[in-house]
Amino acid sequence: MKFAVLGTGMVGQAIAGKLVSLGHEVMMGSRQRGNEKAVAWAATAGESAREGSFAEAAKFGEMVVNATAGAASLDALSSVDAKDLGGKVFIDIANPLDFSAGMPPTLTVCNTDSLGEQIQRDFPEARVVKALNTINADVMVEPSIVPGSHTVFISGDDQAAKAEVVELLESFGWPKGDIMDLGDIAAARATEMYLALWLRLWGVTGTGHLNVHVAVA
Amino acid sequence: MKFAVLGTGMVGQAIAGKLVSLGHEVMMGSRQRGNEKAVAWAATAGESAREGSFAEAAKFGEMVVNATAGAASLDALSSVDAKDLGGKVFIDIANPLDFSAGMPPTLTVCNTDSLGEQIQRDFPEARVVKALNTINADVMVEPSIVPGSHTVFISGDDQAAKAEVVELLESFGWPKGDIMDLGDIAAARATEMYLALWLRLWGVTGTGHLNVHVAVA
Repeated sequence: MKFAVLGTGMVGQAIAGKLVSLGHEVMMGSRQRGNEKAVAWAATAGESAREGSFAEAAKFGEMVVNATAGAASLDALSSVDAKDLGGKVFIDIANPLDFSAGMPPTLTVCNTDSLGEQIQRDFPEARVVKALNTINADVMVEPSIVPGSHTVFISGDDQAAKAEVVELLESFGWPKGDIMDLGDIAAARATEMYLALWLRLWGVTGTGHLNVHVAVA
Repeated sequence: MKFAVLGTGMVGQAIAGKLVSLGHEVMMGSRQRGNEKAVAWAATAGESAREGSFAEAAKFGEMVVNATAGAASLDALSSVDAKDLGGKVFIDIANPLDFSAGMPPTLTVCNTDSLGEQIQRDFPEARVVKALNTINADVMVEPSIVPGSHTVFISGDDQAAKAEVVELLESFGWPKGDIMDLGDIAAARATEMYLALWLRLWGVTGTGHLNVHVAVA
């Protein structure tokens, strides 16, 4: 399948690399075609890898992954033609972290709204699925790094889109039983707000290679 | 030891009952002495149980537990004489949930502040420890309801106070290895914001008898 991966950071590189390794064609999108990191990635990732602007990548992908910095995601997406996202599964991995006041970051939006919802409102024809945003980039694409059963959350308004994301996550190595559907896209508030706890867990354990397992009686 | 348990709801009843069963003396505090629920509790919980106003309970307890509704906690505590909390370990279990716009609730404070921090600021001489607020009342006092290893978080500025809370949690049945210290009282933001996820997990699983286990590579 053809994928757009928007963003050239650690998450974008991890997801784009994994997708290529699974046989997909990937265009990494950035603010402007020719972005140094995107060019370097495409040069080493093989023939299925290419790079372009956010708009070009969104046009190219049959499925689109948002791995831009969350605080800048809406601005990044404003350069994308809405019709290029229409009907497509749009996986939003971004967290709206605001580092402007130093560490720990706060959220630019939370509690009564979320980045996932904002994107869905800006692109009503896109089939937005919030996923993977509670997990470190390495673990996203190699869940077995963290021992035992642990949980990846998805949410979104489109059931069929979520089913496609579940399949993709399984291809990444996530056992079906560890993929938990939290409901509609408003559940993005829950997983984005969890970042405050994730950052503390990272600080306490000294590693991003962690995750939570939901234990139920 | 003498405990004040502020609040007459499910959490207050669970904690107060557990404390009595462990041999502690407990005064359940409410807005006014003679509160119907507090009187009923004290009448059935045995000789170590009594009830009084928030102020009376705070004066009575050598350790104080805040199990009031989080959105009303600061107001409830405003009736307490600050000198009656001075030097005491104050366990804040409350979550600042706002149900005024229906379900799911939002938080009255989050992101850049938390209820735990507000209480610590209002009572600088109290040794505030945020704890247990990520867990259903039944599970708080009987962690083995949820199978396997799962995590209870504590945070606060006073190390010795946290050590006392760890001991108390162990007496409740929490294995020491499942008690995670997240750092200073600002970490209350993290555990209070987690409530958004907890509420979704409750909705999806259909039970409050759940918790997260932190898995680390």
